[in-house]
Amino acid sequence: MSVQVHKDYIVVAQNASGRNMHVPVYRLRGNQPGPTVYIQSSIHGAEVQGNVVIYHLIGMLKSRSLCGEIILVPNCNPVGTNIKAGEYTLGRFDPVNGTNWNRGYFYDPQRLLAFAETVNVQESDESIKQRFRNYWRQAIEDKLAAPWGLGLAQQLNLQLQKLAVEADYVLDLHNGPVSTRHIYIPEYASQSATLFNIPHCIFIPNQFAGALDEATFCPWWTLSDNLQQRFDRPFNFSVEAFTLEMGSQEVIEFDAGKEDAVSIMTYLAAKGVVMDQQLKPLPISRVAVRLSQYKTLFTSFGGMVEYCAKPGQRVTSGEVLARVLNIDELDNERATHEITAPCDLIPILHFPSASVLSGTQLYKVFTEFEQLT
Amino acid sequence: MSVQVHKDYIVVAQNASGRNMHVPVYRLRGNQPGPTVYIQSSIHGAEVQGNVVIYHLIGMLKSRSLCGEIILVPNCNPVGTNIKAGEYTLGRFDPVNGTNWNRGYFYDPQRLLAFAETVNVQESDESIKQRFRNYWRQAIEDKLAAPWGLGLAQQLNLQLQKLAVEADYVLDLHNGPVSTRHIYIPEYASQSATLFNIPHCIFIPNQFAGALDEATFCPWWTLSDNLQQRFDRPFNFSVEAFTLEMGSQEVIEFDAGKEDAVSIMTYLAAKGVVMDQQLKPLPISRVAVRLSQYKTLFTSFGGMVEYCAKPGQRVTSGEVLARVLNIDELDNERATHEITAPCDLIPILHFPSASVLSGTQLYKVFTEFEQLT
Amino acid sequence: MSVQVHKDYIVVAQNASGRNMHVPVYRLRGNQPGPTVYIQSSIHGAEVQGNVVIYHLIGMLKSRSLCGEIILVPNCNPVGTNIKAGEYTLGRFDPVNGTNWNRGYFYDPQRLLAFAETVNVQESDESIKQRFRNYWRQAIEDKLAAPWGLGLAQQLNLQLQKLAVEADYVLDLHNGPVSTRHIYIPEYASQSATLFNIPHCIFIPNQFAGALDEATFCPWWTLSDNLQQRFDRPFNFSVEAFTLEMGSQEVIEFDAGKEDAVSIMTYLAAKGVVMDQQLKPLPISRVAVRLSQYKTLFTSFGGMVEYCAKPGQRVTSGEVLARVLNIDELDNERATHEITAPCDLIPILHFPSASVLSGTQLYKVFTEFEQLT
Amino acid sequence: MSVQVHKDYIVVAQNASGRNMHVPVYRLRGNQPGPTVYIQSSIHGAEVQGNVVIYHLIGMLKSRSLCGEIILVPNCNPVGTNIKAGEYTLGRFDPVNGTNWNRGYFYDPQRLLAFAETVNVQESDESIKQRFRNYWRQAIEDKLAAPWGLGLAQQLNLQLQKLAVEADYVLDLHNGPVSTRHIYIPEYASQSATLFNIPHCIFIPNQFAGALDEATFCPWWTLSDNLQQRFDRPFNFSVEAFTLEMGSQEVIEFDAGKEDAVSIMTYLAAKGVVMDQQLKPLPISRVAVRLSQYKTLFTSFGGMVEYCAKPGQRVTSGEVLARVLNIDELDNERATHEITAPCDLIPILHFPSASVLSGTQLYKVFTEFEQLT
Repeated sequence: MSVQVHKDYIVVAQNASGRNMHVPVYRLRGNQPGPTVYIQSSIHGAEVQGNVVIYHLIGMLKSRSLCGEIILVPNCNPVGTNIKAGEYTLGRFDPVNGTNWNRGYFYDPQRLLAFAETVNVQESDESIKQRFRNYWRQAIEDKLAAPWGLGLAQQLNLQLQKLAVEADYVLDLHNGPVSTRHIYIPEYASQSATLFNIPHCIFIPNQFAGALDEATFCPWWTLSDNLQQRFDRPFNFSVEAFTLEMGSQEVIEFDAGKEDAVSIMTYLAAKGVVMDQQLKPLPISRVAVRLSQYKTLFTSFGGMVEYCAKPGQRVTSGEVLARVLNIDELDNERATHEITAPCDLIPILHFPSASVLSGTQLYKVFTEFEQLT
Repeated sequence: MSVQVHKDYIVVAQNASGRNMHVPVYRLRGNQPGPTVYIQSSIHGAEVQGNVVIYHLIGMLKSRSLCGEIILVPNCNPVGTNIKAGEYTLGRFDPVNGTNWNRGYFYDPQRLLAFAETVNVQESDESIKQRFRNYWRQAIEDKLAAPWGLGLAQQLNLQLQKLAVEADYVLDLHNGPVSTRHIYIPEYASQSATLFNIPHCIFIPNQFAGALDEATFCPWWTLSDNLQQRFDRPFNFSVEAFTLEMGSQEVIEFDAGKEDAVSIMTYLAAKGVVMDQQLKPLPISRVAVRLSQYKTLFTSFGGMVEYCAKPGQRVTSGEVLARVLNIDELDNERATHEITAPCDLIPILHFPSASVLSGTQLYKVFTEFEQLT
Repeated sequence: MSVQVHKDYIVVAQNASGRNMHVPVYRLRGNQPGPTVYIQSSIHGAEVQGNVVIYHLIGMLKSRSLCGEIILVPNCNPVGTNIKAGEYTLGRFDPVNGTNWNRGYFYDPQRLLAFAETVNVQESDESIKQRFRNYWRQAIEDKLAAPWGLGLAQQLNLQLQKLAVEADYVLDLHNGPVSTRHIYIPEYASQSATLFNIPHCIFIPNQFAGALDEATFCPWWTLSDNLQQRFDRPFNFSVEAFTLEMGSQEVIEFDAGKEDAVSIMTYLAAKGVVMDQQLKPLPISRVAVRLSQYKTLFTSFGGMVEYCAKPGQRVTSGEVLARVLNIDELDNERATHEITAPCDLIPILHFPSASVLSGTQLYKVFTEFEQLT
Repeated sequence: MSVQVHKDYIVVAQNASGRNMHVPVYRLRGNQPGPTVYIQSSIHGAEVQGNVVIYHLIGMLKSRSLCGEIILVPNCNPVGTNIKAGEYTLGRFDPVNGTNWNRGYFYDPQRLLAFAETVNVQESDESIKQRFRNYWRQAIEDKLAAPWGLGLAQQLNLQLQKLAVEADYVLDLHNGPVSTRHIYIPEYASQSATLFNIPHCIFIPNQFAGALDEATFCPWWTLSDNLQQRFDRPFNFSVEAFTLEMGSQEVIEFDAGKEDAVSIMTYLAAKGVVMDQQLKPLPISRVAVRLSQYKTLFTSFGGMVEYCAKPGQRVTSGEVLARVLNIDELDNERATHEITAPCDLIPILHFPSASVLSGTQLYKVFTEFEQLT
């Protein structure tokens, strides 16, 4: 038994030569009904490892028994992948205007509240869910049809969101600069943290800042909170969305990608999409922080830096994080100075270049983290 | 009689060689008391014409009778000015992370409301103004001293804002891409629109989006609204802030800069900073829009574009704005197509390159504009 | 009567998404035999005006009586056209390694001399020409098949040169930064200078520095010189190649492009490709220099510059070319300084940004130029 | 006993703000006469590890007994170090025009031959050496004083070369993209290969392509060859110059830098600059190739790549070098393909990004290498 893979393309942009830029969409449909899953990779152009993960996922899913449908969109930002600046890929933002490629998804709380008004006490969860999905799809299409047009990043984001809005489970595959594996998890779905084989978890509140995970979960979470308040009973629409950070940018590793794919398969098994009772999360150590405790350490200096603390390694307060070389003082004791940890922490990622201006994001770190059990 | 010019430098950043990056601060003090004026230029690195304007201003002010103090900060972003990408200057955003250099100024409505609580009904306007300035200066310094540091753009912005917070009148000198002269004016100070010799005026509401003009007027405007509501009498702290767009980026023109300097002198004369009754605004035609009617026309296509409508030129609905060449259809009638005006409008600026991807800001235009009298 | 236009595509590169990048090739064949003409545009990605010229050429040629074949390749560098860095196009060099897109064409004097050895005294010019073209085409293909591969710019150049090698007349359409119209003409074909409506002519010697015009004429010129020396009679293979600089980069102008197209039509008429005795060069003033007298004026300073002398305007020794603003001395007489012309000259182009580092190509100028008659 | 370190600065450029850009020059003078040594680092802005090596060298040299003088110039290209494009440093070429920062040093064979004419048979080697150094220093200064100016990279190079021309031993410290340690050695000085602790050696012929090592040794080597031919006796001016590639760009590692500094100390001991008989080259395995056998493997495809073969690791013909992911074929057997070694080889460096366009330098490799003994 083998699942068929349907492949088509959507046009997400035109380049300066007037040529269409395409994104491949792979679809695998189970022969039983079930949830819809949406997985994309490389919205930031230099974060390419997710493409390998999707490659392995397709290989693994083809020979499985599936319920529902899985939509996979690798290399979802063909603009960002193809902007080279020197040997590297300028992939985090539109080179024309600096717009982050992951901040233009749609969310409009007013429009959501307008929908909530239309729900009455008798309506079933299933009916609400279906009506809201139609309503929200239309809202995205309205936005895309803005009479004066939209910026490139937003156009791209909304084209992808039109696919993601159909899904119950949305995974957005990213990479950090030089980074250990970590995952952003909405607080209401915190119990899903242990369904992936990812050691570092960040719990994020119900706030929208433009990214796909937020754009996916904020409407459902806000809607269920609103209805719960009005009708005084729990609502659960079972929509979850995560940003998975699969190691470092600018890197392709086939073997590591296989492990990441297994981790996602485990989640899909737990959610009843993949029929395999053997697929269980690994008994690894997992630590978690609230987003407010996930700190960015900016430099106050410019200079050349050795990153002494490695991503994933526990550092105690006062230990050396980085050592800075001072070009103008190589002959005296001010030649180097050290940046030390202001508290116990786990570095999750660091800047990928030794050369930093003042105000550079040197490290992002977990502070006041807790062991997950 | 000649005004002395005091010059010093502030350090706003360190580069990757570990060297300090300086910004010159020119100060002219009148021998009579009066308002404080703060004028900066080139926060966006390619927008250099304001530096010429400041040059002419210093020349003009030196031989005048002044009341108060004028602080002039040309080339206020030495990082942005020095990032070349090809022959042009990549000056609108930090090349490391895409952050717009003009979005990191400080404004915190909670902190403002906390101050408002401390005002009682007897306190004089002058006392409130002085106390609030001290309070707000401290708030900026607290922000700058954030324990985990701040990003480069924000550090730069706050260093400048520490100077600007002392001022009653703040002018931020910018340029558009290919642009006619225009000015952003807070709605509460709309009567100042006719004090400059600038033909295109945009009235902006009391909303903060990170820029210096907003960061300057939002606190005072919000404070006076709050106190007015509580104490049921008008408050006016006489603080005004403007963003002046002095033509096109990447261009230095000494003669045009002299005219722009005269325009600013006229404003300063009206505000009692420069003692010269002869300095009067020119009787030019001025049109104005609300910010919500200042529209951006994005392209839905990629291609190569002739900008047929020139900045400042009135265009009626249906007229051609731009003509697009289609490289792949040069032998048939699809070789070109036209972008027409969706309504009566005045183009204020257009994109500076003929080569555009889909989602490019082709034009920014005035719609539903009105003649100022 | 109307000439048919055949259009096909060649693949010149693959992008980082693994997608083919295409270049359109338009061919118009006369119903009488005649020379072959090859015209390309935009090898430098920001130099887009040549695409408009080709558009107009196709329109004009379609209704003409032609002898031979005309091959037109607009937008011949789809990589360079699509690298944006800020709002502009980083089009002169490969952003990965700095390689100029117009320096990787093929020329190998050893290989040419090996061919010359095979010519004997009886062989007709026509036979030599045909044999050499075959030989040289093969040499280009051998180069393309290099066992360890080739760099992107060179691959692109050789793919285009495979088309151009078939031609008797090769025109490479470029733009300067901010530029007046000018043309590079091989010295042996100097009489063709007056066949175009281009006012500024640069005569270049038989030296190869990597560009298409040189790669086209050097082999034929060197071959005819070699044979002439050996066989003591003149040889003329009637191959000419020119680089036409059609104004400023980053600009599309349909009307100006029509004039440029007429200028090329005039040349084609003179060469017997277009059958139209009415098409005559305009009686404009033309000046010319030898390449060694076409000077680049580099700055010794960094700063902000007004370009006072406009391209095409005659400047006498000592006149002001540029005025420089000194940010750190705005309050004294060192605030500005002037760059003056070291001799009588005609500026042909200047740097497109006011912001220059030391060592910037401020102007390129004609010196010791002569009037053409 | 401790050697004093003298530090001063030279100005090598001005930035667009009109500010001088400085380079530090550290000098250590022995109390006995001896050779002059010149060591610079970071002419390519992202290649920063050499700065750490110089830091360690200063520390080691301070407590040694020295003969002669050692000149150390870290961070010798402050322009290149400070051009960020995204998070990385665009350090190999001038972002304005693509000029490689390491190709503008001076060498003029005509001028050298003019000098050789002035030598007569009686002149001592020492006299020739001193006269030629004066002559060549003047030639560099003449070049710097070019009446129409010079480009930025060339100005920078010549300023540095004015320091290097005084030296007998010149070391230029570089890094590769992702790279193992290797060294470029002029063929005439091949016996110095075993004086460094560097496992991979490339022997380069007497050809000038613009780099500092070539610009240093070509004149002396050519001069001695010329004189030897004329006077039929050997000449040896004992000038050597090397390019040392100290691992990967964008990286600072203090511990590795100490080992590299020891390697240079060993060379300096062998040359009689550092008085320490204990300093001996390590008995490591060293392999060498001629430059013509140091091959670059370009890609014919674009795509996303895993670099399977690591720098320094021996690979036999047919083994996998790289595995390429094909985004558009993830569901079939064309999803990946492999690049295999065309012969036995040692990869020395590979491209630092997984995302490659066609024509990318995937690997540089040793072929037909030999063990050094």
